[in-house]
Amino acid sequence: MKISMHALSVEVFSRTLGSLSQVLAKGAASAAQRKFEPGVLLAARLAPDMLPLTRQVQIASDIAKNSVARLAGQQAPRFEDTESTFEQLQARLARTIDYLRSVPASALEGSETRDIKVPVRDRTLEFKGLELLQHWAIPNVFFHVTTAYDILRHNGVEIGKRDFLGTSNNS
Amino acid sequence: MKISMHALSVEVFSRTLGSLSQVLAKGAASAAQRKFEPGVLLAARLAPDMLPLTRQVQIASDIAKNSVARLAGQQAPRFEDTESTFEQLQARLARTIDYLRSVPASALEGSETRDIKVPVRDRTLEFKGLELLQHWAIPNVFFHVTTAYDILRHNGVEIGKRDFLGTSNNS
Repeated sequence: MKISMHALSVEVFSRTLGSLSQVLAKGAASAAQRKFEPGVLLAARLAPDMLPLTRQVQIASDIAKNSVARLAGQQAPRFEDTESTFEQLQARLARTIDYLRSVPASALEGSETRDIKVPVRDRTLEFKGLELLQHWAIPNVFFHVTTAYDILRHNGVEIGKRDFLGTSNNS
Repeated sequence: MKISMHALSVEVFSRTLGSLSQVLAKGAASAAQRKFEPGVLLAARLAPDMLPLTRQVQIASDIAKNSVARLAGQQAPRFEDTESTFEQLQARLARTIDYLRSVPASALEGSETRDIKVPVRDRTLEFKGLELLQHWAIPNVFFHVTTAYDILRHNGVEIGKRDFLGTSNNS
């Protein structure tokens, strides 16, 4: 039980993306049970100028894998953002988790002081590795995982906080 | 720039609760501008069986301060959950942040291996300190901060991801 960049990135992100996959499974099951097209949920938004469920999942995946890759000095796998079903989104999360788990703790040792650049739209953000985790990667990943959950909850899918937090010895 | 329990709890939570306070200020301003009772937003929910905005803010505050207190072996300040205005919620967040910042890094040193019990409703969760942070405190705080943001966004408040992430050198 040692605090490390690996523990606060790979372990945290693989857990929450795994929970998100379970939450998506409940979304698909809910659509089947209530007899409507699952695509209705995938395209659902909380506001007209917010991104729909599919994009929330894709971005959670991107920020998790890209952040860990930058910390490790690696190139993250690229995904094409072509998912159009719940199953495809779950497969993407599984591939993301596989990648995260392929990064050994040793590759992240000392990454807290690494200079990291993150290109976003019109500018480039600069962080030390620890700041990237604290104020970019962790908040962003949880933002998109939570918003995905909130979209499904708002649309009547029966999920609860335990689904969001994921399985553990405690639940 | 050293990775520590303090950096991943006090620093992360005080930043996101500060951002939440700014997001709430925009909610209050939006109600004033659009000429409706601010209490409408405070009572807004994303689903009938989800908690309203006020409770999302109170719980984000509670989990942040209680988690840090448990890690530090302290008693957290108790708040009475009586807030009924945006200003009162912002004051609560300010008090929460004051408490978090009062906990020195030294008080959290070694807390990653501490045995922590968290009473929830009908049971008691048990964690090592690091697990508490990874799989309970961080996900929970961001869940409630994001859901508060999502409630306001869903109700037409003009906020964006930069408000959620908070001010920094980068924004």
